[in-house]
Amino acid sequence: MSLFDTHRPLLDAALAALSDRGHWTPFPELPSPKVYGEHAQAEGQAQVEALLGQDFPLTQPGELGRIAPERSPWGVPLGTRYPECEPQALLTAAQAAEPAWQAIGPRGRVGVLLEALLRIHRQSHAFAHAVMLTTGQGPMMAFQAAGPHSQDRALEAVAVAWQAMSTVPEAARWHKPQGKNPPLVMEKRFEIVGRGVALVIGCATFPTWNTFPGLFAALATGNPVIVKPHPQAILPAALAVRVLREVLAEQGLPPEVVQLAATERPEFTQALATDAAVASIDFTGGRAFGQWLAANARQARLYAELSGVNTVILESTDAYRAMLDNLAFSLCLYSGQMCTTPQNLFVPVSGIATDEGHKRFAELGADLAAAVRKITQHPKVGPVVLGALCAEATLARLDQARAWAEEGRARLLLDTEPLPHPDFPQARTRTPLLLALEAPDETLLRQECFGPISFLVAVPDAEHAAALAERLIRSEGALTLAGYTTDPAFEERLVRLSLRARVALSLNLTHSVYVNQAAAFSDFHGSGGNPAANASYAGLAFVADRFVVVQRRWHVQPEMSATQPAAGA
Amino acid sequence: MSLFDTHRPLLDAALAALSDRGHWTPFPELPSPKVYGEHAQAEGQAQVEALLGQDFPLTQPGELGRIAPERSPWGVPLGTRYPECEPQALLTAAQAAEPAWQAIGPRGRVGVLLEALLRIHRQSHAFAHAVMLTTGQGPMMAFQAAGPHSQDRALEAVAVAWQAMSTVPEAARWHKPQGKNPPLVMEKRFEIVGRGVALVIGCATFPTWNTFPGLFAALATGNPVIVKPHPQAILPAALAVRVLREVLAEQGLPPEVVQLAATERPEFTQALATDAAVASIDFTGGRAFGQWLAANARQARLYAELSGVNTVILESTDAYRAMLDNLAFSLCLYSGQMCTTPQNLFVPVSGIATDEGHKRFAELGADLAAAVRKITQHPKVGPVVLGALCAEATLARLDQARAWAEEGRARLLLDTEPLPHPDFPQARTRTPLLLALEAPDETLLRQECFGPISFLVAVPDAEHAAALAERLIRSEGALTLAGYTTDPAFEERLVRLSLRARVALSLNLTHSVYVNQAAAFSDFHGSGGNPAANASYAGLAFVADRFVVVQRRWHVQPEMSATQPAAGA
Repeated sequence: MSLFDTHRPLLDAALAALSDRGHWTPFPELPSPKVYGEHAQAEGQAQVEALLGQDFPLTQPGELGRIAPERSPWGVPLGTRYPECEPQALLTAAQAAEPAWQAIGPRGRVGVLLEALLRIHRQSHAFAHAVMLTTGQGPMMAFQAAGPHSQDRALEAVAVAWQAMSTVPEAARWHKPQGKNPPLVMEKRFEIVGRGVALVIGCATFPTWNTFPGLFAALATGNPVIVKPHPQAILPAALAVRVLREVLAEQGLPPEVVQLAATERPEFTQALATDAAVASIDFTGGRAFGQWLAANARQARLYAELSGVNTVILESTDAYRAMLDNLAFSLCLYSGQMCTTPQNLFVPVSGIATDEGHKRFAELGADLAAAVRKITQHPKVGPVVLGALCAEATLARLDQARAWAEEGRARLLLDTEPLPHPDFPQARTRTPLLLALEAPDETLLRQECFGPISFLVAVPDAEHAAALAERLIRSEGALTLAGYTTDPAFEERLVRLSLRARVALSLNLTHSVYVNQAAAFSDFHGSGGNPAANASYAGLAFVADRFVVVQRRWHVQPEMSATQPAAGA
Repeated sequence: MSLFDTHRPLLDAALAALSDRGHWTPFPELPSPKVYGEHAQAEGQAQVEALLGQDFPLTQPGELGRIAPERSPWGVPLGTRYPECEPQALLTAAQAAEPAWQAIGPRGRVGVLLEALLRIHRQSHAFAHAVMLTTGQGPMMAFQAAGPHSQDRALEAVAVAWQAMSTVPEAARWHKPQGKNPPLVMEKRFEIVGRGVALVIGCATFPTWNTFPGLFAALATGNPVIVKPHPQAILPAALAVRVLREVLAEQGLPPEVVQLAATERPEFTQALATDAAVASIDFTGGRAFGQWLAANARQARLYAELSGVNTVILESTDAYRAMLDNLAFSLCLYSGQMCTTPQNLFVPVSGIATDEGHKRFAELGADLAAAVRKITQHPKVGPVVLGALCAEATLARLDQARAWAEEGRARLLLDTEPLPHPDFPQARTRTPLLLALEAPDETLLRQECFGPISFLVAVPDAEHAAALAERLIRSEGALTLAGYTTDPAFEERLVRLSLRARVALSLNLTHSVYVNQAAAFSDFHGSGGNPAANASYAGLAFVADRFVVVQRRWHVQPEMSATQPAAGA
């Protein structure tokens, strides 16, 4: 049985889930030993530990030497050594691998990818440990985000790609009546052909979750992929590349269909991005390099997730405590280092109506700070939820934000401080910094302050909040918008705002679903319609332009059966 | 009954045709009075004649005055006066119309568009006459290309857009089990939202066929459209805009969903193209302005069909006369002014094997020239097939090409000459110019020589032809590749070339299907994968990125039914 036939039930279930968009996953998000195996966690961790300080087993063309740039936010030594390869050698190898990858067609590719994905799934604990160590995510979050949730997004990308590719029949008989004359008959073939080499540039915080969609979508649609991980989070990408190459090799396919471009040299990344052979780039990261890519890598189609200013609008609530707890958790989770973490929280200056009576702006600020402290000061919960700060630069950003308070541009609602971790004394940690702005200071609100920094912003009224949010999101982008209101008319206003700013809206979240979270097969991550991202995980637009259809046609006699010309590779 | 329900059978038939890709059309291509009505042709022509020298009835914001830039290649007076409008006024009106157009949703929009399309169909003879007069197409070709074939492509675009939009459910109930605890339940809504104002820039030669796909695709997916026709072919676009606005108004929708930007001022077109409100641009035309758009209108997604070097490779044939006749017709049709007309015909220098024995390069050249002359010199067929030269500039291009022969860079196989038309003594006509190149002169072969100019090029052997064609098409683009061979191995080589150069391949065309022709619902026009075009009529990639999905979600209690928040506009 082919890999495609073997995994067809999984594909079909994913397609059904996509058309339904209810909750579905084949990859349980709880690391239960009953599901993942009695010793899975220990084995996964041991698998990763065995790679630390060692050469990562990967042989690629053009190797110039080995590099080990990863530094753990937890303060533990890593030191895995990856091959750094000459960009042109990787590109040449990718192009050489392309025809074989195209020749096996959509079925062949989807089979290979689902086989690899299930092997990745079985190594979920290894991925979790690698992501925890490199990104600073807490262990539970690392398991979910790097394991099942990343796998969900990969499967989703494959399923959507399959959906797009399968709208085109492989063959057709074109039979055009000619009145009393015999009909014109042509035989036609339609082949799905990838656009060329795909470059997938990962980020430091979610090295699999933000890499798998582009990686699997590009592969499924017939493109060889070069994965360029962030230098601080190579290991998770390398593990995935290894599994994919293993399955490729087993199937007699060139492993160069998937390659790893580990490097710290900007000129290498730029050379890859701007090469004529590179037809698409997936990029998750900062706006500056995103704009550089848009300006300089114009030969490639860019799928970019950049910075944004995620927004919350508080108008009223009938569940004040639950609202605060929900928001506080969103601010604390992974120390605000999610691309979906709220940054700008707008509140009418007069305060809001709640089930606990009217709450003034200052009161709400104090209550939100208290709700955050309840999490950070909980000895079991705090360190696990916050994790560590991925980048040194976030410390400087926190200092900058505290300086705004000192300068009187903002009022300190909750100061940031290290949160000592019992197991990792060297961990780089900081609790959320919460600043109040007595009026909307757009120079502050327009910039993404990546990390645990948020603004509680007094605005004249709720309508001002909506209008300002719309303007800011349209110009600066946002992946998430949350609204709290008990007023149907204002709810309608929020819906209108979300449609105009093209941003996903979460209304009155008070249970254990957070605005940060987007569940594959149900939630689109990013609309692709505002500056925070030009693509969405995973709609048709994320996959449809990664391939073209190349057709051929020839006459046949009406009475003849088709002669199939040999399929070229 | 809603317009959508009324036209649902037509939509369903189009969707079925697309999944089958056999021959299908609801719009008969022969202008039979039985189909189109006894007096349809006279009425259609009269409708157009009544507009000549008159103000075109169209009221739009920001009108600065009236312009009448059209000059007929047939030498007859036109003089219809169109409003020239201030770009910002059109953009503002388009944006104001956007929410209402989005609010009626995919069903509402598809209903409006199919109603308009059927009205356009009933005016096929008017469109044919307007296209004939403005473009120089012969009357039969004008009927087919401007009438049913354009309507096919419009319907195809609407159907593919519907296909893409309908992969997303409007609503979902997300029901996540929580072990022994009650499940988490969320209600979700998914709305299709256009990306913003769409600009559709038409060309002079096919003012409806190359405009309708972008126009109807952008509209169907929720975008207001500004149609910017070529100044030489405004009337056909204006007729379509008028019908669309008529249906919009009848449905209580703002007619500014569709606007006409007739202008000769490059700065107006540039202002439209680069405005932040413009989210997509469809452009058919020359490479220079296409590259300008790519470089300067970077806020917009560009769907471009540019120039290319369409190619024929002659290796062998078992139907020599039929091959020559087929090729000759392709070269003559509309005087080579189709984006699909072959330009570079490669032949092994030693000649080719045929059913009439071996044919040397020189012999084949003479025979092809004779086959062209057979068409041009036929008093009934010649003028009808050739039509007139759309642009004055084509005369200069012919002079340039003749100079190459005088300079000895090429050998004249067949000279170009005026072809007097019995009905239009002032028509700008020229028969095809055929040049032989004794070796591939890449500076000639790399440039598109738009119009009736082709090269018969001697190459060392067929493999050289394939390699050279691949290289040229990958760098300069092509919409069509035709191959003639009786050798299965070389056929396989051609298939491989077509896949690598991402160009549609027509094999051994000898009956009355021509390489120039691409039938909607079956043939993709352009692969979108080489420099001749970055998009294809009409695959999913042509529509999928014209809209985004904006979702909203909110908690519901497991036992509660969903409370639908008001749908905003």
